Amino acid sequence: MGLLPAPVERLAEEFARFPGIGPKTAQRLAFHAASRVPPAVLDGLAAAITATAATVTPCPVCFFLSDEGQLCAVCRQPTRDRQLICVVEEPGDVLAIERTGEFRGLYHVLGAALSPLDGVGPNDLHCQELLDRVAAGGVKEVILATDSDLEGEATATYLLRRLEGLDVQVTRLAHGLPMGGELAYADERTVARAFSGRRQA
Amino acid sequence: MGLLPAPVERLAEEFARFPGIGPKTAQRLAFHAASRVPPAVLDGLAAAITATAATVTPCPVCFFLSDEGQLCAVCRQPTRDRQLICVVEEPGDVLAIERTGEFRGLYHVLGAALSPLDGVGPNDLHCQELLDRVAAGGVKEVILATDSDLEGEATATYLLRRLEGLDVQVTRLAHGLPMGGELAYADERTVARAFSGRRQA
Repeated sequence: MGLLPAPVERLAEEFARFPGIGPKTAQRLAFHAASRVPPAVLDGLAAAITATAATVTPCPVCFFLSDEGQLCAVCRQPTRDRQLICVVEEPGDVLAIERTGEFRGLYHVLGAALSPLDGVGPNDLHCQELLDRVAAGGVKEVILATDSDLEGEATATYLLRRLEGLDVQVTRLAHGLPMGGELAYADERTVARAFSGRRQA
Repeated sequence: MGLLPAPVERLAEEFARFPGIGPKTAQRLAFHAASRVPPAVLDGLAAAITATAATVTPCPVCFFLSDEGQLCAVCRQPTRDRQLICVVEEPGDVLAIERTGEFRGLYHVLGAALSPLDGVGPNDLHCQELLDRVAAGGVKEVILATDSDLEGEATATYLLRRLEGLDVQVTRLAHGLPMGGELAYADERTVARAFSGRRQA
């Protein structure tokens, strides 16, 4: 259009890069930022983004979000059962499971699910690192908690096949989870039931 | 939860301040930023936000978005018909109308609509500035293009009453616009039809 100040156009473009934010929502966010948010609050947002870029790194063991190369808050807890690894797609899934209070093991965050159509293969996920963790020993059970959509199921099937040669029990969350849905959006009781009813994969 | 690095928690809080972004979406955005967006891209977003905070100001005449106190891109165009003022709620409404190519006058951006329940009164909008523009002379028609929801209608009614004493024709966009909807989301043809069918208020 050429009617907007350049920083607002640029801000809308930056917002539109985020998942689930269409061009209209991105523009709305940029307008809101430009016309309603006091400069001091905007500077606070910019600082939060810069701090995230500078200090947040994946946990070197489980790939959950952590600080500057250190172990994440879950891996650091001495009381967790290190014989159990729950495999999820995204950091938000860890929070969804922690909210239930049902699981006391460790996690493994793949980063995404397999999606051949989008060009996401096993090497784009932290699959090998999971196999290495299991091969290193001391793990009794791997719980596959990928989403119950097509990509999540394909990812679970792939991991099950890769884990078969190793001395570990592999389970899959029970179908208490709504089919086609994403784990991070399920309510706590549904996630809890899916945990207690998990079955041999 | 205490499981997330502090910058990610803070980022989610900052995102949640934006309209239409609930806490879950805000967290999802923060996760995405922390785990998928390269630091250089994040720094670009932070820079866009900082530039917006530092340089974007409302146009001193019409309150559309502009640069550092200057007239906005619409007010600067020498070909616009300065006898027509189209009154809208938000900057996004200006873009929606410009996309139709139907309107060649100037704008007046109120900033919001009257909403007694939310404590938004006439003094919170740029109402007085509109009256001053009209009182200064040279304006033949004021087109009230506030949204067709309750707040927008109330705002139009309020402005109509305030403009009655002045020597100016006041019109309202035709009801081609879907009732209860927001102008910024209407398709171009609907907005265009609403313009051509505008009636005496």
